[in-house]
Amino acid sequence: MSATTSAEVTHGTTYVDLEGLDSLFRPTSIAILGASNEVSKIGGRPLRFLKESGFEGSIYPVNPKYDEVQGLKAYPSLAAIAGDVEMVIIALPKPFVKDAFIACAAKNVKVVTLFSAGFAEESDEGAALQNELSAFARANGMRVLGPNCLGSASRKSGATATFAAVEAVEKPHWRNDSVALVSQSGAIAAAWLIQGLVRGINFDPWVSTGNECDIELADCIAYLALDDDVKVIAVYMEGCRNGDKLREALKLAYERKKPVVMLKVGRSDVGAKAAASHTASLVGSDQIFDALFRQYNVCRVDSLTELLDTVYAFSASTLPTGDKIGLMTGSGGVGILMADVATEVGLDVAPLSPGLQASLKEVWPAAGVGNPIDTTAQLMNDGQLLSTFLQKVLGGAEFDTVVLFLSYMGLLKPWSDTLVEAVRRARDSFPDANLIVAMTATPEVRDAIEDMGIIVYEEPVTAVHVAARMARTGMGFARAADTAVADGSSVSAAGTGELTEVAATQLLAQAGVPVLPTKVVTSSDEAKIVSREFEFPVVMKIVSPDILHKTEAGGVALGISSPDEAAAAYEKIIASAAAYDADARIEGVMIAPMIRDGVETIIGVLNDPAFGPTVMFGLGGVFVEVLKDVTYRLAPFDRDVALEMIHEIKGFALLDGARGAAPADIDALADTLSDLSIFAADNRDHIESIDLNPFLVRPVGKGAVAVDALITRIGH
Amino acid sequence: MSATTSAEVTHGTTYVDLEGLDSLFRPTSIAILGASNEVSKIGGRPLRFLKESGFEGSIYPVNPKYDEVQGLKAYPSLAAIAGDVEMVIIALPKPFVKDAFIACAAKNVKVVTLFSAGFAEESDEGAALQNELSAFARANGMRVLGPNCLGSASRKSGATATFAAVEAVEKPHWRNDSVALVSQSGAIAAAWLIQGLVRGINFDPWVSTGNECDIELADCIAYLALDDDVKVIAVYMEGCRNGDKLREALKLAYERKKPVVMLKVGRSDVGAKAAASHTASLVGSDQIFDALFRQYNVCRVDSLTELLDTVYAFSASTLPTGDKIGLMTGSGGVGILMADVATEVGLDVAPLSPGLQASLKEVWPAAGVGNPIDTTAQLMNDGQLLSTFLQKVLGGAEFDTVVLFLSYMGLLKPWSDTLVEAVRRARDSFPDANLIVAMTATPEVRDAIEDMGIIVYEEPVTAVHVAARMARTGMGFARAADTAVADGSSVSAAGTGELTEVAATQLLAQAGVPVLPTKVVTSSDEAKIVSREFEFPVVMKIVSPDILHKTEAGGVALGISSPDEAAAAYEKIIASAAAYDADARIEGVMIAPMIRDGVETIIGVLNDPAFGPTVMFGLGGVFVEVLKDVTYRLAPFDRDVALEMIHEIKGFALLDGARGAAPADIDALADTLSDLSIFAADNRDHIESIDLNPFLVRPVGKGAVAVDALITRIGH
Repeated sequence: MSATTSAEVTHGTTYVDLEGLDSLFRPTSIAILGASNEVSKIGGRPLRFLKESGFEGSIYPVNPKYDEVQGLKAYPSLAAIAGDVEMVIIALPKPFVKDAFIACAAKNVKVVTLFSAGFAEESDEGAALQNELSAFARANGMRVLGPNCLGSASRKSGATATFAAVEAVEKPHWRNDSVALVSQSGAIAAAWLIQGLVRGINFDPWVSTGNECDIELADCIAYLALDDDVKVIAVYMEGCRNGDKLREALKLAYERKKPVVMLKVGRSDVGAKAAASHTASLVGSDQIFDALFRQYNVCRVDSLTELLDTVYAFSASTLPTGDKIGLMTGSGGVGILMADVATEVGLDVAPLSPGLQASLKEVWPAAGVGNPIDTTAQLMNDGQLLSTFLQKVLGGAEFDTVVLFLSYMGLLKPWSDTLVEAVRRARDSFPDANLIVAMTATPEVRDAIEDMGIIVYEEPVTAVHVAARMARTGMGFARAADTAVADGSSVSAAGTGELTEVAATQLLAQAGVPVLPTKVVTSSDEAKIVSREFEFPVVMKIVSPDILHKTEAGGVALGISSPDEAAAAYEKIIASAAAYDADARIEGVMIAPMIRDGVETIIGVLNDPAFGPTVMFGLGGVFVEVLKDVTYRLAPFDRDVALEMIHEIKGFALLDGARGAAPADIDALADTLSDLSIFAADNRDHIESIDLNPFLVRPVGKGAVAVDALITRIGH
Repeated sequence: MSATTSAEVTHGTTYVDLEGLDSLFRPTSIAILGASNEVSKIGGRPLRFLKESGFEGSIYPVNPKYDEVQGLKAYPSLAAIAGDVEMVIIALPKPFVKDAFIACAAKNVKVVTLFSAGFAEESDEGAALQNELSAFARANGMRVLGPNCLGSASRKSGATATFAAVEAVEKPHWRNDSVALVSQSGAIAAAWLIQGLVRGINFDPWVSTGNECDIELADCIAYLALDDDVKVIAVYMEGCRNGDKLREALKLAYERKKPVVMLKVGRSDVGAKAAASHTASLVGSDQIFDALFRQYNVCRVDSLTELLDTVYAFSASTLPTGDKIGLMTGSGGVGILMADVATEVGLDVAPLSPGLQASLKEVWPAAGVGNPIDTTAQLMNDGQLLSTFLQKVLGGAEFDTVVLFLSYMGLLKPWSDTLVEAVRRARDSFPDANLIVAMTATPEVRDAIEDMGIIVYEEPVTAVHVAARMARTGMGFARAADTAVADGSSVSAAGTGELTEVAATQLLAQAGVPVLPTKVVTSSDEAKIVSREFEFPVVMKIVSPDILHKTEAGGVALGISSPDEAAAAYEKIIASAAAYDADARIEGVMIAPMIRDGVETIIGVLNDPAFGPTVMFGLGGVFVEVLKDVTYRLAPFDRDVALEMIHEIKGFALLDGARGAAPADIDALADTLSDLSIFAADNRDHIESIDLNPFLVRPVGKGAVAVDALITRIGH
């Protein structure tokens, strides 16, 4: 057993619960309640699969009606079994499940897989029973998978605890068993298991979590992150009750540089939500998931096929740590197509060095030696050309990944012999090169190439897309984890309700957020004197815990350009405020400089019920309001993550000196985002939301400043 | 022969040349110069293919070395053949090609297919020879395909005039021969021919155009647009020398409602170009192609596979005329996934009517009856459920397309029998329903479904993407063609050089473009009097053919709010202009109202060398400068096309009343775009570019107005 034991791994984790998962994936004994002789029935299938899968532990069919089931000795009850039972599969109708749980507890069972349906997915009564069962299991130290799930299977241990019909499909020679699969949908797990067959992917282990009354997706991801037999984790997810747990699980995988390839559905609901104009509503749940995935280098995919194509590549290859891509082709057209796509997905289609260009031209003067490298149709005529080109291009080591398009050379002899030979020689000479082949081929030719550990797609565009995912994920692992976020001195926002702008500003300043230097004055004379401390023009605003809409109350004056104007403005503001709300507590009038240079951005924090404080960043004005051009990260995060956020937005050019403006002080912006995220995370229990709008990013060297700050605390 | 003859079709076309294309695709006799006994050689393959393809015309191998080639009587020369020769295949090395052309002309040959390489693609000398050959052919009334091409094949006539090795691959039982293929790349044609095999697509006819010394891609598209045997045209394109010809060809297909599915490469070059900030450079060539494709309802795809997936669907089905999509699934997860994708690609995932919902709930109360419709896993248990649901959903006729996801039901009995039966019953009951099935299936089950004329994909996301392309293309054919553009009274911009703003404004006003009412004054007294005719404030600008940069010359005054200010501004502008350029011819000072409401847009026209005047539209400011959020159409076009442009831009919400503003007068904007396009097309020989920047679109009912207008004419 190569996985770290649960005792070891629970050390250091706070949210995920790995207790009993060894018993799920590597049990030494399994009993089946409701075991059936009929191999097509839900109680017959797991028994059949266990017998066929080479499971070496004890198998105990339980069925009071028979002495023997499928040729194995059957037991009238769990209690009648002499030895220990580590895992129990319950394949009984709902009315019998409760008694079954009691029997399991009495037998000191470690984990129960509950196939039965009719619980939370069906009715309130079902949900109540499900809650009762999970509470009972927890009290008795049992873990539960399901209910309403397809079960799980570990090919290495042979523990095929499932009724999935796909297990009955004849399996071809397996190539790849280093990809694990965790799915909240049984149907999607089954579809992947089937479609994996033809791609040589033997998901191991796989698990379908169903209603998740106890064992959650995140628990499984964490367990597999720590399992050394697993190289890649494929996940299908619909939602998540416990954001911290999921975050911790993904972090475990991230720290071990183990790729998680994720199909998360539910984008479109968010699309609708995002249409709303309120800032807070921009933080739709799918966008938080997206932030989480970016933060922990999860590779998000958009279709069933994309997941399979991606895990196939990730499990077969070492991920590159750069994004320079070399494109080799015998078809100029496909070369352009691949270059188009590579550029579009952000790969670096870097030109070849002059030396390499000359060296290729020497071999075949008519070749295209830019990037793409085009051998021309001579590839088909000259049996040596492909090999010579491959040796030179891989030997040059100028690319992190090379995609080689060979049209249908793999389909016809003698071309297919030539190509297999050329690729074999390339593999022998450069075993570490990341080479992807795109071609139509016979199964034999494809097998020959794959047996060298080189992946093959038919579609060149797919090859380039996968190359991009490999590069992005490989580079993501190369960057530092957010565990490096400094603790810093904690600034507390304890208390309830909204803070005045002055109080919010002070708190943010302590937390490291650059704010306007302000002074509060309480008389027109003081306004006249104090205003001189600022560079004119200044702005003046009412300070009152009772007046939230300052402009509406006539409580704001802009462009004050002299001490006398400041004095007059003071009187006017106080009078307006009194007229607006005679009972308002007035604490004075705030004076602040009026900053007019800088790019207008917007920074927000929303305390998500599942994931905690989440930081939003975007450009102000039409960018956020019309284009929803914003990005998110879960707090806390470091400066590098903040810089990623900044570069991610579509309007980034505006910060980078577009339209002839000076480049903005991106360093100051990144520091603010990171500092604010730390402050927000520290105050997760106190803060509901923060809005810095606008947050002006001034030209390089001049820093940045929050012009308006609003902090809303939890409770009233 | 079902195609219209070339004599008929050339009538009414101006640019495409259909002469001789019947001889290419349906010749009655073919001679092969360089015919070889070796079936793997370039001169041996076409002979072999012709023998095997059932070609019923005469085949004449020409080779002076043999009396017989591949069992057929061989001829020492073309002249030695007794009868007429309609088509000649030249499979000779370059040095022999010129004499071969002379022999072809002497024999009154109609079309020559020239496989030989070493022409324009290789050297200047090769290009010169190529030009010489095409001129000779033209003078002698012969058409030429190639050189450097793979040839062509028509399966119906058996004219397999190609050396493509793919023709040697054994073909399975064909299902679909209504898709034609035209490619500028031989390698991509070959890849599609091969990959088409496994999808049951038998491209017929197909043609590879190579160097296009005479017959161009567009000629072939036009010919196939008029061929009633062809239902869909698949195209691979890299570029196009003659934009008008391509436009005409696509228009022919459009008017006949014949879908063209296009893989056009070369996007990424444009990406680089688009980075430049100058407006004119925004009109990169790929963007013009994109405009052309939108205008003529060409379905543009992004990969080899996408093209195959799309032509498969388009040829098997009648395209829907609406975008309401029904999603049916046995997996809740895949339902959400399909809904996500459908929403993202703009399909209408409309809810079911309450009646239909109730009717489904009656059958299976646990079903999800929103959209997606989720039968739940009960689908697998209840043999009647699928059929009952399908009958009800298709019977309701509430959707233009229904996508049905069946996981791997097609792989295992008895499920596969159940599903084939259910789909057959649905097909029989609703023969016109557009149903797409997504599932993993055995070849037999897939064949059974496809034989009913229902398309099958494995990936549900692909099914939804294809459904979107079907809807978009079907709806595109339903809208009016731009042939409806009214001629109107032609406004001439004859002359050369840049026009003054006043002259440009007058011309545009005549053409129907709303411009500011302006007056030109020539003294401060006149300024004082005339300014009263306007509502203050007004703007004043110098009028001089020699001063292009008016602001730089101090020639602009904004916010003039009284007659006295107007008089003063006049003096100041004249003085500044004189100081700026003492020799400048001053025609006076223009007075215009200062419009301040309205959304700032930008409208441009660029006279493209290949396609003629192209109209650009976008929002002003950051939208065009930072986000390149612009769209294009080739002039002329009607109001409906203009409305499409307006709705296409990402920032459309700004015109639609975003940020609390009043909705803008989109009708006025659409009229302007259409009128300007007609003006630009009429003046194709005179106008180099037009810039209306800004063009203000005011609130509904208040119209729109060009605040600044620049027309540059061709020449100096």
